[in-house]
Amino acid sequence: MKDVKHISSLQNPLIKKTLLLKEKSRERKKSGLFVLEGRKEFELATKGNYTMDTIFFCPELISIEALKASFKIENTPLISVSLEVYGKLAHRDTTEGIMAISKAKNHELNSLHLTQANPLILVAEAPEKPGNIGALLRTADAANLDAVIIANPRTDLYNPNIIRSSVGCVFSKMIVMADTSSIISFLKEKRIAIYCAALTASKPYTSINFTGPTAIVVGTEHSGLSEEWLTNSTQNIIIPMEGAIDSMNVSVSAAILIFEAKRQRIG
Amino acid sequence: MKDVKHISSLQNPLIKKTLLLKEKSRERKKSGLFVLEGRKEFELATKGNYTMDTIFFCPELISIEALKASFKIENTPLISVSLEVYGKLAHRDTTEGIMAISKAKNHELNSLHLTQANPLILVAEAPEKPGNIGALLRTADAANLDAVIIANPRTDLYNPNIIRSSVGCVFSKMIVMADTSSIISFLKEKRIAIYCAALTASKPYTSINFTGPTAIVVGTEHSGLSEEWLTNSTQNIIIPMEGAIDSMNVSVSAAILIFEAKRQRIG
Repeated sequence: MKDVKHISSLQNPLIKKTLLLKEKSRERKKSGLFVLEGRKEFELATKGNYTMDTIFFCPELISIEALKASFKIENTPLISVSLEVYGKLAHRDTTEGIMAISKAKNHELNSLHLTQANPLILVAEAPEKPGNIGALLRTADAANLDAVIIANPRTDLYNPNIIRSSVGCVFSKMIVMADTSSIISFLKEKRIAIYCAALTASKPYTSINFTGPTAIVVGTEHSGLSEEWLTNSTQNIIIPMEGAIDSMNVSVSAAILIFEAKRQRIG
Repeated sequence: MKDVKHISSLQNPLIKKTLLLKEKSRERKKSGLFVLEGRKEFELATKGNYTMDTIFFCPELISIEALKASFKIENTPLISVSLEVYGKLAHRDTTEGIMAISKAKNHELNSLHLTQANPLILVAEAPEKPGNIGALLRTADAANLDAVIIANPRTDLYNPNIIRSSVGCVFSKMIVMADTSSIISFLKEKRIAIYCAALTASKPYTSINFTGPTAIVVGTEHSGLSEEWLTNSTQNIIIPMEGAIDSMNVSVSAAILIFEAKRQRIG
């Protein structure tokens, strides 16, 4: 352990920088770095070919031996931090003694290379809450979607609440972000059918054939999708609702549509 | 307005009692009363035949004329409260000037009378978070389920976070609570097929015929369903997951299963 640096001061410049990265979207964008935390998240990021810049561990929570046995960390600077410093850096109450500064990936639309001839894609326009984005990414992971596209994003992807609520799925999927117009052009050019979920649509989703190249597009709970999506869609679709209120959580609606497409594609 | 009492003191006994009802499950159980808040919630509770004990309104947020025009409130004591008192009582940031103390309903299993010959029921065992229960109730509402049964509940139904996250759907559905053994007996006696969602099941949900009397049973994200459910089921079923992590949010899983059953029942 002699080559492992130890930090116990909250005033240490690297600790201060890490806190800023965690808290400020602007800092993440400027530096191209972000902070991740937890075993599962570290594993998924490593599997997703994310490059770690610095790894922090707290010896009171995980031993260096356990760390080296569990994770491939040979080529990354390793820093031991005190329980106090770890507590300050950590986003979660229950935590596992491992955090890292990692390099962000390129999430521009032109980085999206669809390898399947018959892709199934989820598009979410301007999702409001990090928790909703996280839930959408979990569903996208479970369904093994070919890509998730976020239109007109309101936050960067490495917001700690997105990482947390996605349970690390943010690292496992091909995710890109762009403005709505560019995404519509992209989908049309690739001849991918655009199915927009809308409460005003007349066509129930169960009557749609999702077996061809498909993008399922969902908007926000409050205002739904923008006109631009609704007028450029192949077909607007509705999940028939028979209850007292007229909307479902966006991650629930998206899951119903995605898994109906998956069901049709099994056979 | 001369017959409307006004309260501006936080020390008023009725205000103190209302706060206790909001905050303490024990107080709600003891008194058979709970607190609801907001226009939509008030409307849905009225529609669901809940009886109001007392209605509070804040004249700075809603006029008494608007209140009387919007809601049937003739026979209920009406109390005007100051903005300060309303702010103290209110659970939400954005609020609408109306709250009420309402009488709880009977949610015992023997109060459940199924009117459809071919019911579709959701059972959730020991759901952990009020937010998850709220999301399940929204889905149950949208799908117009015949009943929601909560097995081994960890909270009472009138927790302010359940009311809030259900967007008032908690008032629109037939909801009962009981222990797992009693529910299994009830379902068997009624010849309702029991389909338990389990990550260890081998049968994909898409291969099941849900068109008969059906109970879809979901457990918690962390530990799934108890052995008692799994060994007493008609069939354990799985939503095939193809991703990096092996669970979805419980409200998402339930929605996928419920809407597949709904799809099969359309034809």
